[in-house]
Amino acid sequence: MISEKFLDVISHEGVVSLVTCGSDGAHVSNTWNSYLVIRDNKILIPAAGMRKTQENVEQNDKIKVTLGSREVMGYRSMGTGFLVEGTAKFLESGEEYDLMKEKFPWLSRVLEVTSESVKQTL
Amino acid sequence: MISEKFLDVISHEGVVSLVTCGSDGAHVSNTWNSYLVIRDNKILIPAAGMRKTQENVEQNDKIKVTLGSREVMGYRSMGTGFLVEGTAKFLESGEEYDLMKEKFPWLSRVLEVTSESVKQTL
Repeated sequence: MISEKFLDVISHEGVVSLVTCGSDGAHVSNTWNSYLVIRDNKILIPAAGMRKTQENVEQNDKIKVTLGSREVMGYRSMGTGFLVEGTAKFLESGEEYDLMKEKFPWLSRVLEVTSESVKQTL
Repeated sequence: MISEKFLDVISHEGVVSLVTCGSDGAHVSNTWNSYLVIRDNKILIPAAGMRKTQENVEQNDKIKVTLGSREVMGYRSMGTGFLVEGTAKFLESGEEYDLMKEKFPWLSRVLEVTSESVKQTL
């Protein structure tokens, strides 16, 4: 589900948005393209803050992730983006946590997004 | 409210996220940093699609906008971002529409975000 083009996008730097819903509406937190680690249909993201995202996810685990790059070809011209829809979980231990902690020593948790749908939007 | 640093960010290319809430939860659409036009506390954004964003805004006009650039200095290191909270309206005519239509002939409406809060997040 994670395509070559998706990997191409995250090889360029950019802003990723992580959208979750709480009882008080939508929340958005951000990270960088270069922080994403792909394992099959999972996206692993280092988390230092992201407290509100975690609070929301513990109530409602649905998440939407958007990212893109102007330097990767889209359907019709330069610039493409993706919308990932899936579920989110915060990890504080385990194999994926250890893998990420080695790469990003400053993380306190890992946000694991299990993608259910990955759409190229542009 | 729109700072020099904000203008610096949008002078670099990147992905902007536009988060709105509908009865079926949060929706996120995207545009590019370079498409944003600032007029006082308003952000004007050309809209071609964005139908779901418009549908949501007509029910609940609250919007969250995030953007950033790894190439602009943040509080502690390179890379900064902003969260804008405000209200949104779609324009189909008027002075701001004409100004934007000249710059972006492909737009069908203009998304006008009136910012209530602009926070540097990083």
